[in-house]
Amino acid sequence: MSCIIDRLVIIGVGLIGGSFARALREAGVVKTIVGIGRSRANLENALSLGIVDEISQNPVEGVRDAQLVFISIPVCTIPAMVQTIAASLAPGCIITDGGSVKAEIVTECERLTPPGCFFVGGHPIAGTENTGSAASFATLFNGKRCILTPTKRTDSGAFDTVSRLWHAAGANVCSMEPGHHDRIFAEISHLPHVVAYALVHAVGTADVEGENVLSYTAGGFRDFTRIASSDPAMWRDIALMNRQALLASIDGFSTSLAELRQRIDHGDSQGLADFFTIAKQFRDGIL
Amino acid sequence: MSCIIDRLVIIGVGLIGGSFARALREAGVVKTIVGIGRSRANLENALSLGIVDEISQNPVEGVRDAQLVFISIPVCTIPAMVQTIAASLAPGCIITDGGSVKAEIVTECERLTPPGCFFVGGHPIAGTENTGSAASFATLFNGKRCILTPTKRTDSGAFDTVSRLWHAAGANVCSMEPGHHDRIFAEISHLPHVVAYALVHAVGTADVEGENVLSYTAGGFRDFTRIASSDPAMWRDIALMNRQALLASIDGFSTSLAELRQRIDHGDSQGLADFFTIAKQFRDGIL
Repeated sequence: MSCIIDRLVIIGVGLIGGSFARALREAGVVKTIVGIGRSRANLENALSLGIVDEISQNPVEGVRDAQLVFISIPVCTIPAMVQTIAASLAPGCIITDGGSVKAEIVTECERLTPPGCFFVGGHPIAGTENTGSAASFATLFNGKRCILTPTKRTDSGAFDTVSRLWHAAGANVCSMEPGHHDRIFAEISHLPHVVAYALVHAVGTADVEGENVLSYTAGGFRDFTRIASSDPAMWRDIALMNRQALLASIDGFSTSLAELRQRIDHGDSQGLADFFTIAKQFRDGIL
Repeated sequence: MSCIIDRLVIIGVGLIGGSFARALREAGVVKTIVGIGRSRANLENALSLGIVDEISQNPVEGVRDAQLVFISIPVCTIPAMVQTIAASLAPGCIITDGGSVKAEIVTECERLTPPGCFFVGGHPIAGTENTGSAASFATLFNGKRCILTPTKRTDSGAFDTVSRLWHAAGANVCSMEPGHHDRIFAEISHLPHVVAYALVHAVGTADVEGENVLSYTAGGFRDFTRIASSDPAMWRDIALMNRQALLASIDGFSTSLAELRQRIDHGDSQGLADFFTIAKQFRDGIL
């Protein structure tokens, strides 16, 4: 693929933003990459590592002349960022994001994107335990899925450009309606986090004759609850931004748990074995 | 430690039973080890590997002259096994087990153990993904906890012998009341399994515009739900044998989840951050 972006701006040069920059540079599809962020230290690190060519802590100044702006910051702050940079955008500029919630972000960002510019929602399904530009690497998206969430308002040329960039970054691009994305991720990502947090909370506050039951946990419990060590602020934001879909997922889970509880309570041996077997089949099916 | 058991019988020469045999032989605290089980192939494997010195598929015959019998078979079948072997036990024989549920097993086995013989409940907190005698190894219990669950009826000499054996096998031995054990493991082990099964069941049956949402899962979901690939029959038995404690744990969890759901529903940003932060602190505290 030949060079398709002269000036790319990355707002939030962390694991995702930094890896996107590295991957596109290696693919030879961008000329100049500008990194924008709040942390001077992180930006200077990104500059010294060659991830970006220029840095700025001022988004209003930094986005000038960009052909494409990739926003990779906490989900709650993405629409406000679009609002902040709107007046500085060059005509034809494409804005895209990497937020893990889509419906509210896409609706707000489409509304806030100025006429003559374009917004395309996106969500790369990749990540590691680490954060910051130093943790980024060019192959993070290799073979991973990147979901784009176009709407009736999405410009087909802008969609095509964003799609080509993710493809150049190594991702398998697919697209779906923003609300459909959110309902899927409520089930497979947001619900498990909520369940893990609730489980650790319940076990941590359980009163078994005054003893700290957590002191008896072993590797199995640690593995199962690893995601409850995730960043509370990030998951607060995701839970609130995907509230309706997440509440429906929680209710679906609660119904399953109530069904299972009833079979235990009734001593329904066959019913229990059936329930566990069906669940095991679902689980083994994703290996 | 000098040799303390002339003739040890292991009923169920799998990962736990086989590893117990190997560890005690390496420690030099047993002379002869007899392996009993239903699978001829597994027993012959154990014999050829030198885990046991003699094998038998007939518990009634196999336990004769044993000084100590270790029962490591599915929890639901332990009391019936004690009943089966009761009439064949030599005077003074000690029976102990490795079941992960204790109250019902201890009550039943104490009742079924003949006068002049002794029962001591136990639960070694160790394991791997693998099963069968070939998967066993002498260091499985090294530094791991083994919980013994004596009652008012437990013979102190028998308790001391079982405790010394587990110590010789490398375990850190502690003791607690059987019901207390079951309430702790309902929280830290049985509840997480039930929750994982319910989660996978809910996500697997979720209808998001007719799409199979499991096809979008990545490593995080796989890790979180690994325990839902456990043996359904084993977890059916555990759930039924520890029913009361498990139901209480499920209810405690449901209360936590309902609290979290309410904070999401109300858009309680601070309350959500607080809940997630408390859970994260509990989780980080067990690392």
